[in-house]
Amino acid sequence: MGYTIKQIANALGADVLGNADLVVEGVSEPADASREHLAMAMKPKFAEDLPKGAARAAFLWDGADWQGMGLEAAIVAHRPRYLMSGLTAFLDPGQGWDEGIHSTAVIHDTAQLGEGVTVGPLAVIGAGAVVGAHSVIGPQSYVGTEATLGEDCFLREGVKIGSRCVIGNRFIAQPGVAVGGDGFSYVTPEKSAVEQVRKTLGDRGEAAAQSWTRIHSLGAVEIGDDVEMGANSTVDKGTIRNTRIGSGTKIDNLVMIGHNVEVGTDCLFCSMVGISGSTKIGKNVVLAGQTGVNDNIFIGDNVVTGGATKVFSNIPAGRVMLGHPAMKMETTMEVFKGLRRLKRLYDDVAELKKTVLNQKQSD
Amino acid sequence: MGYTIKQIANALGADVLGNADLVVEGVSEPADASREHLAMAMKPKFAEDLPKGAARAAFLWDGADWQGMGLEAAIVAHRPRYLMSGLTAFLDPGQGWDEGIHSTAVIHDTAQLGEGVTVGPLAVIGAGAVVGAHSVIGPQSYVGTEATLGEDCFLREGVKIGSRCVIGNRFIAQPGVAVGGDGFSYVTPEKSAVEQVRKTLGDRGEAAAQSWTRIHSLGAVEIGDDVEMGANSTVDKGTIRNTRIGSGTKIDNLVMIGHNVEVGTDCLFCSMVGISGSTKIGKNVVLAGQTGVNDNIFIGDNVVTGGATKVFSNIPAGRVMLGHPAMKMETTMEVFKGLRRLKRLYDDVAELKKTVLNQKQSD
Amino acid sequence: MGYTIKQIANALGADVLGNADLVVEGVSEPADASREHLAMAMKPKFAEDLPKGAARAAFLWDGADWQGMGLEAAIVAHRPRYLMSGLTAFLDPGQGWDEGIHSTAVIHDTAQLGEGVTVGPLAVIGAGAVVGAHSVIGPQSYVGTEATLGEDCFLREGVKIGSRCVIGNRFIAQPGVAVGGDGFSYVTPEKSAVEQVRKTLGDRGEAAAQSWTRIHSLGAVEIGDDVEMGANSTVDKGTIRNTRIGSGTKIDNLVMIGHNVEVGTDCLFCSMVGISGSTKIGKNVVLAGQTGVNDNIFIGDNVVTGGATKVFSNIPAGRVMLGHPAMKMETTMEVFKGLRRLKRLYDDVAELKKTVLNQKQSD
Repeated sequence: MGYTIKQIANALGADVLGNADLVVEGVSEPADASREHLAMAMKPKFAEDLPKGAARAAFLWDGADWQGMGLEAAIVAHRPRYLMSGLTAFLDPGQGWDEGIHSTAVIHDTAQLGEGVTVGPLAVIGAGAVVGAHSVIGPQSYVGTEATLGEDCFLREGVKIGSRCVIGNRFIAQPGVAVGGDGFSYVTPEKSAVEQVRKTLGDRGEAAAQSWTRIHSLGAVEIGDDVEMGANSTVDKGTIRNTRIGSGTKIDNLVMIGHNVEVGTDCLFCSMVGISGSTKIGKNVVLAGQTGVNDNIFIGDNVVTGGATKVFSNIPAGRVMLGHPAMKMETTMEVFKGLRRLKRLYDDVAELKKTVLNQKQSD
Repeated sequence: MGYTIKQIANALGADVLGNADLVVEGVSEPADASREHLAMAMKPKFAEDLPKGAARAAFLWDGADWQGMGLEAAIVAHRPRYLMSGLTAFLDPGQGWDEGIHSTAVIHDTAQLGEGVTVGPLAVIGAGAVVGAHSVIGPQSYVGTEATLGEDCFLREGVKIGSRCVIGNRFIAQPGVAVGGDGFSYVTPEKSAVEQVRKTLGDRGEAAAQSWTRIHSLGAVEIGDDVEMGANSTVDKGTIRNTRIGSGTKIDNLVMIGHNVEVGTDCLFCSMVGISGSTKIGKNVVLAGQTGVNDNIFIGDNVVTGGATKVFSNIPAGRVMLGHPAMKMETTMEVFKGLRRLKRLYDDVAELKKTVLNQKQSD
Repeated sequence: MGYTIKQIANALGADVLGNADLVVEGVSEPADASREHLAMAMKPKFAEDLPKGAARAAFLWDGADWQGMGLEAAIVAHRPRYLMSGLTAFLDPGQGWDEGIHSTAVIHDTAQLGEGVTVGPLAVIGAGAVVGAHSVIGPQSYVGTEATLGEDCFLREGVKIGSRCVIGNRFIAQPGVAVGGDGFSYVTPEKSAVEQVRKTLGDRGEAAAQSWTRIHSLGAVEIGDDVEMGANSTVDKGTIRNTRIGSGTKIDNLVMIGHNVEVGTDCLFCSMVGISGSTKIGKNVVLAGQTGVNDNIFIGDNVVTGGATKVFSNIPAGRVMLGHPAMKMETTMEVFKGLRRLKRLYDDVAELKKTVLNQKQSD
């Protein structure tokens, strides 16, 4: 590897200051940088560490005093965080997999692979499956019967796509992703305690103990374009129709999306988010890590939740939520403050009661 | 595909109204239904969408005015939700896998496969493992050394069953399930901070920082009949004896069941439930999504928890619980209400203090 | 199998009382013990169950009245829990896998395997990967391009190690572990609602809905010696530098460690712990099950959290934390108590208001 500062800046559409012909071999955080590294110092806080390393060039914000930092060259941008996308794409060495169909892959006679598809060692592609052009099916991954993957998809190792799932272009799945497991849907011969509690909010009544009979999932999973899923995340099939995930939605590790859920476009679900069955999520919704969402509710467009928010009921569009239970973030911030002083509040009230009682008696 | 309404109704033991010879090709939600679909409209709310679709036949509740809905035929049932079980089973096309032992499966010489067993491509069956008649071991799945699976089990792709685990009949495991990892059990040479905190509930004392030495898991996992596990869920081995899951228990995706845990029959654990080591769960217990259960406690029969309930101590049989910490659902509903008004409570108390102080001074 | 009591005690460095030549075939819990079992009765509570079983020998605490329990022999130790480590290691039958390189494993020509390495059936080892001496790569596991594993590592079935990850000696990975997925890092062309909310703590402002562009992960994952990871747990790659996990740290099932996170030595993370990107965790930190940790914060050495603690901000060294939000354990214990009585507090305040108002009016 080895690029001139100019090559990198051109690839990003960014400006160069200083010696544009300086060659770097990679990027690093400022403190770790050798003389052959481009230091990533996209904000003043990061730039403070430049003297701990030996970088001669850095990636900086617009207007940074690169010369005052003792650098020989700088790449500058108005919103450097955004350009990190292009920069890291440019430098990404990828997974280092050989192209083409590996001899140990098991591909059904009736599967259709587009032009330039790569299938890694010990991958399985089922009957009637369709894989779009230039997609990569990683080692030990599985594409089920009659599943469809679009073009330029990239499945890492051990990814599982269930039968009849339909996935768009440029889908990226990290290791261990499981799309298309059966939905978690059971029924009892007579009304169950769960159905009872949902109505009474607390009283399980006389519901007898019963066994659970499974409702099969006849639907599949439908995923739009440019969706990504993190390691070991799961999306279940729908019962009658497909579970749906809109284009541009990004999903982190260990996320669970239940059967019949509909997720809009351009959502961001952080790690360990759980969305229960039949819930609808709007567009551009951001759910922070460990957010839990009840079944059969909706979350409007542009909603944002903070970490570990527990959503029990509908959220109108545009709200910013936090807490257990989910409330407006401002309300929960007040609640968090209130909880820290709760003991004092009890003490105050006890004191007040005593005072008022004394006054009463002395009246 | 293509069934007469009569064929479907007969398979379910349900009644037909209208044209029993009408042929449908599948089922769909009312709004999505074409003329060749049986619309699933098991309650009035669903039936409202019938005009949005083109269904000529629907699956309805007993007493529904099918003719008023403009239908040519209807299947009706007293508890249609329950019959959905039979209906979806009847229509489930399955995974579309070839029967028999795939040539790329790696099966140890000493493994015993019952009659009619299917082993998918690139599956591994270890030494001394036993697989009961008519069970299906999915592609890339693993059955460990001396593990035992009953009859009519169905493992989807990439399922892992550890050594010496004993599993009953009709077990269903979704993609990526991991049964029989080692328990998470470590010990320090001297008392650790954790042991200290458990006693003092807050004070870690002078416990020195120490390294953790593993306690090996000599037990395995024992699973009854008719158990199901969701995608990427895990159950760990026991330390001395087996971790146990009772017959009829259903487990959703990304659930964790710790070492030595004993789960009764007919439980329902929704997604992301975590049960810590050595805890005992009774029969017919329903734990909603993201419920967490402490180690070394018990939960009685028929307990139900709401979403994200955090259980720190024993729960007697029959309780309905909610919240963090888990309390009776009614109590937590009051707490949730109280939290929303907490700022106002603080304001009220501040106001009261002022008033009372003034009265005191004016006395 | 079959050991004399003396053989076992010698292996552990423990003392024998009674008939040292008594032969046992295994261990069991006291109530389950046959005459051929060594009963594990490391504390008085466990010993109470001895009469329910038939054990003639038991593993007991120092000073236990073994003869009064009717035993023929006993192994005793000052801290028997600690010796369980050696005892279970001594008796662990392991996974029962054949040694050596299985003929169906796919090993790249340029991979380097140390002396005595075992590679299970259908495992994949990528280009330039290095596996240290005596390590075991389980069935269907994957070691990526240029990844490095130390000596005496043990990967169970279906483990995935991503490209360029660097792992120390004696690493143990349970089934389905995924090390080295890409970090969850995206950026929008202009400031996003998330960036806005982080500043305003509640107001998403006028941030327009935008699509997310991925930031690639150029770093990998770096893991020290003696680290263990539980089933289906995940650690993501770093953006510019490596995500790091210190030596001696033990990680349970379904744990998520985000990109750029740095974890110190000898930590213990229980099941379903989630640590968001770029957070730093000190040494000897114990996080109980379902603990969630915000991104870009730090947790000091020796911190302990209780179950389901939600950490939104930095925690100084040595603190014991609990609750949502995380507070000192004592404070949260008070909060939990307060919540249970919250309705009464509201009633008290309402009553006080009435009384004080009456007094005011009667003044």
